[in-house]
Amino acid sequence: MSRVAYVNGRYVPHGRACVHIEDRGYQFSDGVYEVCEVRGGMLVDERRHLERLARSLKELRLESPMPLSSMRIVLRETVARNRVRDGIVYLQVTRGVARRDHAFPPAGTKPAFVVTARSMDRAKQDVAAAGGVSVITVPDNRWERVDIKTVSLLPNVMARQAAREQGAREAWFVDGDGRVTEGSSSNAWIVTKQGSIVTRPAERGILKGITRTVVLDVAAKQGLRVEERPFSVEEAQAAAEAFLTAASQIVMPVIAVNGRRIGDGKPGPVARELRARFHKIAEITL
Amino acid sequence: MSRVAYVNGRYVPHGRACVHIEDRGYQFSDGVYEVCEVRGGMLVDERRHLERLARSLKELRLESPMPLSSMRIVLRETVARNRVRDGIVYLQVTRGVARRDHAFPPAGTKPAFVVTARSMDRAKQDVAAAGGVSVITVPDNRWERVDIKTVSLLPNVMARQAAREQGAREAWFVDGDGRVTEGSSSNAWIVTKQGSIVTRPAERGILKGITRTVVLDVAAKQGLRVEERPFSVEEAQAAAEAFLTAASQIVMPVIAVNGRRIGDGKPGPVARELRARFHKIAEITL
Repeated sequence: MSRVAYVNGRYVPHGRACVHIEDRGYQFSDGVYEVCEVRGGMLVDERRHLERLARSLKELRLESPMPLSSMRIVLRETVARNRVRDGIVYLQVTRGVARRDHAFPPAGTKPAFVVTARSMDRAKQDVAAAGGVSVITVPDNRWERVDIKTVSLLPNVMARQAAREQGAREAWFVDGDGRVTEGSSSNAWIVTKQGSIVTRPAERGILKGITRTVVLDVAAKQGLRVEERPFSVEEAQAAAEAFLTAASQIVMPVIAVNGRRIGDGKPGPVARELRARFHKIAEITL
Repeated sequence: MSRVAYVNGRYVPHGRACVHIEDRGYQFSDGVYEVCEVRGGMLVDERRHLERLARSLKELRLESPMPLSSMRIVLRETVARNRVRDGIVYLQVTRGVARRDHAFPPAGTKPAFVVTARSMDRAKQDVAAAGGVSVITVPDNRWERVDIKTVSLLPNVMARQAAREQGAREAWFVDGDGRVTEGSSSNAWIVTKQGSIVTRPAERGILKGITRTVVLDVAAKQGLRVEERPFSVEEAQAAAEAFLTAASQIVMPVIAVNGRRIGDGKPGPVARELRARFHKIAEITL
């Protein structure tokens, strides 16, 4: 079956789906995005993703291309047309097409809106989670507003490529104080030897992950102790467990940081349990 | 006359010029660009612009879409097809089209290459230069690698918009020590009351502007004293003159910084002279 994308009001064959060369997303990375998990044909935590999108738009004073209720229809239609049962739906909003000029385009310039969906192999993800993954760390050299989910992702690209070249799944950014901020497209977590779950507060310096928020709920329901505070690379390496969270990976156990084994080098029970319970707590909507 | 753009091997009408929605420039700002002045139908400092492009590509491990000699042909052809006498030619290279994944796409993925050209009203620019322009300052919140000319320009967009809303032409970024780094798309300069020209060294924290380099040559030829060092906002406000440089603006006198008049509030003789002499020193090629 051939893929279909939604582009500015039309559903078009993926291979021919295009945007103008002066779309501000292309020339200025002047846009935002969201990635939402699709599970059994349904959207996971869509409400929270759209709420975060609304915040991103507001922070950049970007107009919404349509009411959120209409967006929900487009997301569903794109998922349906691509017959995605398990996978992701991706949406991107940019400040539209205008003659190149750094400042905002003339009033009335329509924001651009693109949606794609694709299937992912759930079994393969589960195999990865059963084995656990490795991460490396890199200095956090990003701009200050990483709390906004923008397409200005070049540092993330370079970090992730470094991870791949070192045989790792993800790169964790580390701030000037030697403490982990977040991954290139995930949030970072550890479980201390005392059993506390630790993750950085989503105030400054990181994106407030939706999966992160739900995992905090899951942990609370399980009666786990949670500490929202920064942790260092050394603390991570000495932790009982580590894991990362992202919409496309749920809870993914981390078994090594910079080649240093975490715990016994196998996925830990806390991460496994959080992963197993995640979809009991997440909002799943048809 | 309708505009024409070069897009990945073809010259196409500007209105229909498009790139794929999964071009990495669109989803990750994974690309670089250059803007070159066109004057009397000829390219100004093309060699330096292409040398800097080669450096940008190398720093991001981006492949060149074609040899630089072929690029020169495409630039000329785009200028000619758009009948640009005075204006700019813009080129952008991205890491090509691939299924969305932060790390580099599979080997063999062809980089994307887009070129546009447009006329600009030289007389209008000269009028602006005769009157001088205002700048505001904003905190420099960009990523660390601003020495690479990438399309990751969202902070520059927000800064420039702030400038426009305050009636200014440009926003100067200011580092944590209160010193000016550079403008959102230009380099920043002052002339001290002792007659020295001051601009920040192009080591870290700023882009090594081509116009900047040529202006340093012009100043040297005129026997002016040049100090490559950072300067503070206060020093700028107390300076004899200020100006900015960019390929599309040459030397543009600055008459106010954050609403505070510079000198007597009129373009100064040093900036005027540098502007007048610029094209005697710049490399102009047909």
